[in-house]
Amino acid sequence: MTPAATGAATQGAEGPLIPVLAVIGVGLIGGSVALALRQAGRVGRVLGVGRNAQSLARAQALGLIDAAVTPEEAAQADVVLLATPVGGLGAMLARLRPHLGAATLLTDAGSTKAEVVEAARAALGDRVAQFVPGHPIAGAERSGPEAADAGLYRGRTVILTPLPENPPAGVARVRDLWQACGARVIDMDAAAHDRVLAPVSHMPHLLAAAYMAQVAAAADAPARLALAGTGFRDFTRIAAGSPEMWRDIFLSNRAALRAELAAVRAVLDQAEQAMAAGDGGALEALLERAAQARRNWRKE
Amino acid sequence: MTPAATGAATQGAEGPLIPVLAVIGVGLIGGSVALALRQAGRVGRVLGVGRNAQSLARAQALGLIDAAVTPEEAAQADVVLLATPVGGLGAMLARLRPHLGAATLLTDAGSTKAEVVEAARAALGDRVAQFVPGHPIAGAERSGPEAADAGLYRGRTVILTPLPENPPAGVARVRDLWQACGARVIDMDAAAHDRVLAPVSHMPHLLAAAYMAQVAAAADAPARLALAGTGFRDFTRIAAGSPEMWRDIFLSNRAALRAELAAVRAVLDQAEQAMAAGDGGALEALLERAAQARRNWRKE
Repeated sequence: MTPAATGAATQGAEGPLIPVLAVIGVGLIGGSVALALRQAGRVGRVLGVGRNAQSLARAQALGLIDAAVTPEEAAQADVVLLATPVGGLGAMLARLRPHLGAATLLTDAGSTKAEVVEAARAALGDRVAQFVPGHPIAGAERSGPEAADAGLYRGRTVILTPLPENPPAGVARVRDLWQACGARVIDMDAAAHDRVLAPVSHMPHLLAAAYMAQVAAAADAPARLALAGTGFRDFTRIAAGSPEMWRDIFLSNRAALRAELAAVRAVLDQAEQAMAAGDGGALEALLERAAQARRNWRKE
Repeated sequence: MTPAATGAATQGAEGPLIPVLAVIGVGLIGGSVALALRQAGRVGRVLGVGRNAQSLARAQALGLIDAAVTPEEAAQADVVLLATPVGGLGAMLARLRPHLGAATLLTDAGSTKAEVVEAARAALGDRVAQFVPGHPIAGAERSGPEAADAGLYRGRTVILTPLPENPPAGVARVRDLWQACGARVIDMDAAAHDRVLAPVSHMPHLLAAAYMAQVAAAADAPARLALAGTGFRDFTRIAAGSPEMWRDIFLSNRAALRAELAAVRAVLDQAEQAMAAGDGGALEALLERAAQARRNWRKE
């Protein structure tokens, strides 16, 4: 499948070309990788796999992919990026397994890693060395191929959670792929990844979504929402994200997420007790800790 | 105190000039009004009142005010804008009361209104007709005179909650002041204002602050925060706001806020039960309601 026509370009300016990239799930996450690698001149042909034929046709019309293929065909690509909700990753890997090219490198973009690794081991068996787990910490409230953005990963962090079985060259190639998208790449243990992402990524989404569901359910929701300002706008932005993707994240990382939720509830209890008691000092101390922590957070 | 030197400019391009404006609390909120009115050519002299002499000196150096004065001197201005945390408004109005000019118009920028109106009645007595309560729905995570921005209110909504005692000309003048800052002005009942602002403004701040205090208190907070991305950034932005201002808002509107918090907790309970039961359908339905509500919210 090496594209003869692009033979002169098999070496990009900053690294080797991926002759054939297959993207499974050509939406915001997968489509943005395809666009970024194309823009960097680091990919030959891009194949797309998806459940929705219309969505794939739009992805092709938008120039994200060159052709729509089956998972079985995708399994022969040089690199296969799985960018679907994490709950379906195991089943997809099991489907790819019998058709997997000997040198095909698999990677994913899932937001949780421990369950993904477990599912990959079960699905791939002795071919699990070909799977390098990854997670780009970038996203947007939009979804679908129209949301793809070549700059989505620029300056963002991608976490790889390599397996002991992964050959160093495979890990290096996935690292190179994300660096070509403009990202900074770090390695972590899968369990540590999930413990850290529960508080800084999954919890904000849970709180924003629970809040948004509550405010929209009120009888006077239109009157309320008409008066919402820029604070509301930014606070709720993430609540518009893909419900399917976030359902899988919450289920996959529920142990860590529920532990964090208990800790957040304890702080809400403190705030509520301070309000009930009219204790301005306790309330201000809590708000001061929050404000200081946020102001000290790295500026972007 | 009418500035003779600007006699030729007593009529601005779009309405009458405020010959002397006094701003009590020259930070983000008050300083931005001063800057916007200056930019629109709608104010003569601007006087500033504040507890902190250094902050007032910076406000003067930045061109927000022409001079720092005492509350007693400020009480003689044509318009006095109180832009301090709501908890101190009653005491400030009581201090202004004995020195209040016969035609001086008082207004405020406090984020809650029912308690402010009550405090104003107690402090001003038979002069309460001179006080027109207001609330600009605009803000930023920054504070202090350096945060002042002439464009802060452009395209934003300002709610006035006029008193039965207010003469129409007084209300019209305050409306005109905010319109000159670029805002859209609407009138509401003070109690209705507080009931609506609890869910769309005060609750996001409470959740963002409680979350931020929790995430920052963890033993591995630096490792967590280093991996936080754009979702975290937007979700927590408001948590950096003035602790003193928000303490007063929470105390002032605690009845409505606690009722809303109970409703948010009920949705969190649903999410937690769905996670505990591995009920993907229930979790997705909740996330779908939130995502649809957020996507349908007016775009900005």
